[in-house]
Order: sequence, then structure tokens, then C-alpha cells
Amino acid sequence: MLNDATSEFLNKLENQLGKNCLRAPEPRDLSEPRGMYTGQAAAVLRPTDTHQVSDILAACNAARVGVVPMAGNTGLTGGQTLQDGALPVIISMERMTNIREISVENNTMTVESGTILADIRAAASNENRLFPLALASEGTCRIGGNLATNAGGVNVLRYGNTRDLCLGLEAVLADGTIIGGLKSLRKDNTDYDLRHLMIGSEGTLGIITTSVLRLYPQPKHQFAAMLAVPSPKEALALLTMMSDQLEGRVSAFELIDRTGLDFLIEKVIPFKEPFLRAYPWMVLMDCGGGDGLQDAMEQALAKAMEAGLVVDAVLSQTLGQHQALWQIRETIPEANKKIGPISSHDISVPIARVPAFIDAAHKLVDRRFRINCFGHMGDGNLHYNVFPPKGDSPKNYLHLQPEINGSIYDLVAEFGGSFSAEHGIGRLKAADLAHYGDKGQLLAMRKVKDALDPNGIMNPGAVFA
Amino acid sequence: MLNDATSEFLNKLENQLGKNCLRAPEPRDLSEPRGMYTGQAAAVLRPTDTHQVSDILAACNAARVGVVPMAGNTGLTGGQTLQDGALPVIISMERMTNIREISVENNTMTVESGTILADIRAAASNENRLFPLALASEGTCRIGGNLATNAGGVNVLRYGNTRDLCLGLEAVLADGTIIGGLKSLRKDNTDYDLRHLMIGSEGTLGIITTSVLRLYPQPKHQFAAMLAVPSPKEALALLTMMSDQLEGRVSAFELIDRTGLDFLIEKVIPFKEPFLRAYPWMVLMDCGGGDGLQDAMEQALAKAMEAGLVVDAVLSQTLGQHQALWQIRETIPEANKKIGPISSHDISVPIARVPAFIDAAHKLVDRRFRINCFGHMGDGNLHYNVFPPKGDSPKNYLHLQPEINGSIYDLVAEFGGSFSAEHGIGRLKAADLAHYGDKGQLLAMRKVKDALDPNGIMNPGAVFA
Repeated sequence: MLNDATSEFLNKLENQLGKNCLRAPEPRDLSEPRGMYTGQAAAVLRPTDTHQVSDILAACNAARVGVVPMAGNTGLTGGQTLQDGALPVIISMERMTNIREISVENNTMTVESGTILADIRAAASNENRLFPLALASEGTCRIGGNLATNAGGVNVLRYGNTRDLCLGLEAVLADGTIIGGLKSLRKDNTDYDLRHLMIGSEGTLGIITTSVLRLYPQPKHQFAAMLAVPSPKEALALLTMMSDQLEGRVSAFELIDRTGLDFLIEKVIPFKEPFLRAYPWMVLMDCGGGDGLQDAMEQALAKAMEAGLVVDAVLSQTLGQHQALWQIRETIPEANKKIGPISSHDISVPIARVPAFIDAAHKLVDRRFRINCFGHMGDGNLHYNVFPPKGDSPKNYLHLQPEINGSIYDLVAEFGGSFSAEHGIGRLKAADLAHYGDKGQLLAMRKVKDALDPNGIMNPGAVFA
Repeated sequence: MLNDATSEFLNKLENQLGKNCLRAPEPRDLSEPRGMYTGQAAAVLRPTDTHQVSDILAACNAARVGVVPMAGNTGLTGGQTLQDGALPVIISMERMTNIREISVENNTMTVESGTILADIRAAASNENRLFPLALASEGTCRIGGNLATNAGGVNVLRYGNTRDLCLGLEAVLADGTIIGGLKSLRKDNTDYDLRHLMIGSEGTLGIITTSVLRLYPQPKHQFAAMLAVPSPKEALALLTMMSDQLEGRVSAFELIDRTGLDFLIEKVIPFKEPFLRAYPWMVLMDCGGGDGLQDAMEQALAKAMEAGLVVDAVLSQTLGQHQALWQIRETIPEANKKIGPISSHDISVPIARVPAFIDAAHKLVDRRFRINCFGHMGDGNLHYNVFPPKGDSPKNYLHLQPEINGSIYDLVAEFGGSFSAEHGIGRLKAADLAHYGDKGQLLAMRKVKDALDPNGIMNPGAVFA
């Protein structure tokens, strides 16, 4: 139930912005994909442009009403769901879905924050351009959320994280101030880099409303190779060799644990075994390039086999084979979900330390448990997930989760790594940030937060515990 | 002359940090390359590590002593030279010159901020790695200054600006707080991005003391092509075609104005004419890659000639030819200096708008004057420089400088561009920033500055007018 003050506030806003600008929250607005958080909200506000966002924030700031920005609601750390505290409003980007401009010569696209990632990728592709951000949720997630969380994905190795794919933006601060100027420049040294400050701040400093995205030439050919490797150590040496030999054309380098394939079999998820033998470790490498690419890959892989880094290899020859290889990688998270993890981690360490980290982590975890350790090895980003013994339920072990998480995160810290490589902090990891974060960094973050959002209305409870 | 309070402050610091930590300012500390500013300083402080920087800043902050950070003192906008106000201290990075670690497998190098850029490039090269930042001043400039100003250069097209070449850093804020954690991760979503906030802030928010730099595989071959183009319009179409055809292997795409070559002749600076005819516009393209590169360049250029984008071409076959082509580009600034500009600009516009911008700018400038418009077209970054009629002295026209600058900057603003693409703001362009900067952005910058440096001790007078 809304109290009188809240009702009055919302009525006033509705009068100012128009009837369609406001709707009642629906269940889909208040829960998130993993079902870990159920939120609450007084209303969902639906601005149609940056100026309306500015009006809304100025009003919320004056009335000290908390604001939860929402794009596609696909985030995995509860950044988009307020759990408790004062009844906030959701500011949804659902009506800001325009692709304003595509420039082939500038290699840029100007988009509003509600635009669905898949629509952006399709629009780029129509112009023979590539927008490299590729996520499992691309049909649902919206670019504003990708930017707010600096989303990662499989192409980071070649094209960078979301922040590297944004040349300029327009954002609104808590008091309604509009910043950014929506620049589409490759070089501009006139400002503090508030663009990168907004990106990845998870809606706690402001709302990104529009952005200029970087496009790339669409590679003419794209080939995948599934490579059996003796161990993560050889996978690392292979990464170095392939980067040298294939010169910037390697777009993905994914480590795959045999456990993942066993999970697919166990949960009867269809896939095509890449090899006749069940190798314990594999790498799925993807490359994009011109006519010489296939030859270059074959030569590079021959060299790798000669050096003992690769013991077996399948190179995709057709689009169908390319998809079949990727299907293995992409269905593993589904199998994980069905098996049910005791604990899962989105961590990173310096690339060169990945093999040593895996060795050390394996020693920490109880031998009864099954481990599926896979992910974006090319970025040092592993999903290190722990599962119960076969046939057993994760529920029987969930009480061990804090202990397992703690020992993994301690190890990550020891290795100079990150306890949240690509998913962000949200509400799920706010306490971890307080514990593992660099003290000076946290102090400075707090000062920046207080300077730009003195009333603390922006996504309260996220990032800061 | 130092007053008693300053002397006492410095004595105390010297006692705390050791005798070698302090020296008297020398003329080279107080002037900058263009001789436009002459500074003053009570002392030059020479910390040897991040903790000493922290001690110094904490002391300066408590005593409200202004601080000018200095690395190689090669900046072109007076960011490293305090002109007036209270007598500040210079914090020089001259004793922090260690390369702490090079990791081939991680593709990173950890360096202290006083390390000379050329030393970094050489150390990378020794490991068959490339650190792509390439500047005319590389033998003198230090990486801390490159980071503080987000230096650009000729390889931005392929590898990005300095900010894109830094994975992590350690920096000290005004009150002595150490931030950054010196991470060497490709993915880390646990923080506000204070790294990018420090980079490019020109020492007004803190001092970067150490950084983790990104290395790349050293391309096996590097070829340059000098290409005569009908006009900047065809140069733009050529850039798009080459980016498509050569897939990420184009590292530089420089527009060259015939005027630049005429200046070389006029000032008797030796160079080899690339063509038999004097074409009005040329492009110097540089590509790095593996064995197929030369064939790929030849094929791509044949296509460009067929399309009428290139009317004449010279492709380097030897290292000597490669150097001869680059010598033309690299000696043009020297010729400019000898001719003497009335006004020079370091500007950028969206790449797609470069030809229209040049047309419009040419119409603004008095026909008596000679224009040399050249630069990093691949980044939309032009050096648009105006010179007196042949035989005349720039001194006779310097009174027109403010008017010319104003009309060029107005035009840049109209084109959505930047009035300082790669050199930064410093003291030279602080008033321009106040005039041309986005109002909301400036407001937010001021808030961030006040939050992190409430006493305003960090590089006072730079960036903010």
C-alpha cells in the first residue's frame, strides 16, 4: 500500500510527464532471473527521453525517493531488485528503444538504453558491421543494463568489455544533471572520464540513457576449433602461441572441463561429442578473419600439436559444425543449473596464473564434490562451480556454501584476482566487496558516490553494503 | 625566496623521507617544451615509492601546499608548470623508473611512473612484445605523464589511447590515500572505474605511481604505403575499405597535406619525394601482420585504385623504405615549427565528418594564409594549423590568433568534435574548457574534484580555469 505522501508524489509526476509514463509494478519487474531476490516498488516510471529521466530524477531527489534503474532485468547479482528500505520507484528503459543512427564510415551506432542487445547486433549485421558484445541473454537484456554492469561475454579477448565498446554516452545524475554529451570521437582529452565512471557503476551514480557504440568490420569468415589439451598449463601456452600466430584474429578462447560434458550426458541435453575419447580438458577457440584464415588456423594448430600443446583437434568446416561446437559451450550453464550447484563463482585472475589457480583451488574443495571449472580463459575469467556427489542433492550441502565461497575468494585475493569478473556486485556481493575490496579504493568510491548522489537515492543497497 | 613556514615544512619532509628526496628546482623543471610557461616551485620532491608519494601528499594536504606532479615534462598544454598562486612543490617521478615485471603469457608489464616510454617499448620488444604507444617524445616522456594526459599518437586506430593500454594502476589521492590495487586483470567488475578517472585527469585528482600496461604480440611484418588520394572524401572511403579488407591490421592512417611537403622543401629538411607528381592530398597507411600481409595490402590497394580512391601508391618493400615514408610524416611538425604557425589546433571530429569539416574550415580561414591540415585521420584527429603567407612572419598575424582559434573551435563544436583531441587541457586550454565544455559535465567534474581534493592542492590551475 502506498502512503499519502508517495501517492501525491506519483500523481504529481504523472501530471508532469503524461499518463503513459507510469504503470503499476508487475511480478516480472520485482523478481530476477535466479529468483534470489524479490523486490518492491511503488511504481514503474517509463520515460521516453533523457529529459524525462532528468525530470524524474530531479523530483525523486527533491523528495528523497529511492530509484532502481531497470533495463532488461537479466543481471545475476540482484542489482536491479530492491529488497528492503523505503519503497522505491523503478525507472524502466522500456520505452527508450530507438536506434538513432548507424554510421558505417564512423563505425558507430547511437542507441537508447532500452534497446535489446540482439536488435543492436542485428542492426549492425545488416550494415555488414559487428557489434561484438555477445551474451546468452542477448534476446532479453538491454544495452543500458549491459553498460551499467560493464557486461563481459565470450568476445572480450578480441574486442574488450562493454566499456571498451562505448565511445560516448548521455547520462543523468541524481539531481537531474545531464552529462556526457553523447560524443562519437576516438580521441577526446577535454574531460575527466565520467563515461567510464558511469559504466559499471550499476545505477548507483546515475542512469545512462543513450550511448554511442563502437562497431567493427564483420569478419568474412568465422571458424571454431575444439582442441583437447593435456591440462590448463598447456591451454595457457596454447593461448600465447595462438595469439602470436593468428594476430588479433582470435575472438574467443574458452576452457572446457570434461565435467561439463558429463553433466550434459547426465541431464540428457543433446550435444555432439567432439572427440572419440573423453579428454579431461578442452579449449574452444573461435577466430574471425578473411580468406587466409582457415589456412592460418591449420598451420597454427599443426605447430601447437607438434609442441604437444594440443592432443586432438576438430576444426569447423561449415556453419553447422561451428554451431555444433558452440552448442557444447553454451548448454553447459543449463546442465549446471539442472545438476544444481552448491556454490558457483564468477572470478578472474591474471591470465598467466590460471593454471596455478585451478591447481590450488582443486586442493581446497572437498574431494567428494564435483567441480566444473570452465569459462573465458582468454580473459583469465573462470566460472569455478562446485556440485554435490552424483545422485546427491545440492540442498544437503548448501550450509557449506559460505565456507566454500570464502575459501575460493581468499584464494582469488591471494592470486591478485577478482571475486566478480563480469557479473558485478549488485546486492549479492556487496558484503564481499566490503570485505575483499581495497580499502583506499572503497574510501574513494564512497566519496565519489556522496559527491554525485548526496541523498543516496540511486539504487540504494547496491554495490555498497 | 622561501618564507619560514615553507622552509620549516620542507625541512620536516626532508627529515621524514631522507636527504635525497629533495632537491632545488632547476630551470629545466620550471619551463616546458614550447616555452610558453615559466613556472615556480619551492622544491622538487623525489619519492622512490608509492608510500613516499603518500607521505608527501598527506603532508602537503595538511599544510595546504600546492603540488605539481611531473613526469617527463614534455606536455604541450602547460599542465606540468605552475604559473602563479602560492609557491608549490613539484613531485617528480625521476627516481621511480623501475620496470618491475614483464609477463609474456599475461601480456603485461608493471612499471613505475618515471619509466621513459622508449625504455618500456624496448623492454617489450626484447620479449617479442609490442607496447603500442608511439610518440615523437618517447625518448624523454615518462609513462606517468602519458597516463595522466591519456596520450594519443599514431597507433590509436589499432590499439587505442593510453587509457586503453593500462589494465591497472596504483595512485595516490590528495590526502595520501592509495587506490587502485595494481590489478593485471582483463575482467574485473568489483569497483567504480577510478582507473579511467585518474587517467587523463592531468594530476588534478591524484598521482599515478605505478601501472600495469597491456602488451601485444609484435607483428612479424610492418609495411607502410604512401597513397595519393583525390581529396579527404576519398581518404575517408579508403579508410573504410582498408579497415574491411585488412581486418584489424591497419595500425596508422595519417592524412598528409601537400603543404607539409612544400614546407619541408622550403625549410630544406631532407626527405624523399614519394611520387613524381605533387598530389595535393596523401595518406600514409601502416599495417602490421604475418606472412600474408603484403599480398593482402597489394590486393586491397588494387581494389582501392580500381574504385578511384587511390590515384598513385608506393608500398614499402624494405625497412629503409618504411622509414623513409615515415620520415616525411615525422618531420612535418619540425617544418611547421620553422615556418611558424599563426595558430595551431589539436582537434577531433567523428571520423565520418572529417572531409566536411576540412571543407568548412578552409572556408573560414583567410585565403592569404597557408594551411597545413594533417594528422591521425583514422581517429578523426587533425592538426589544423594556419601559417602566414610565404616570406611573411607569423608575428605580423599573431593578433589574429584568438579570432582564428575561436572560429575553428566553434566549428569543431558544431561538428560534435573536441578542441583538444590528444594533448589535454593543462593551463593552455582551461579557459576553452570552461567555454566549450558541456555544462553538466563540468559541474560533475567539479564535484568529483572537490570530493577527492577538497583543499585543491593537486595541480592547481590546471584543467579548471
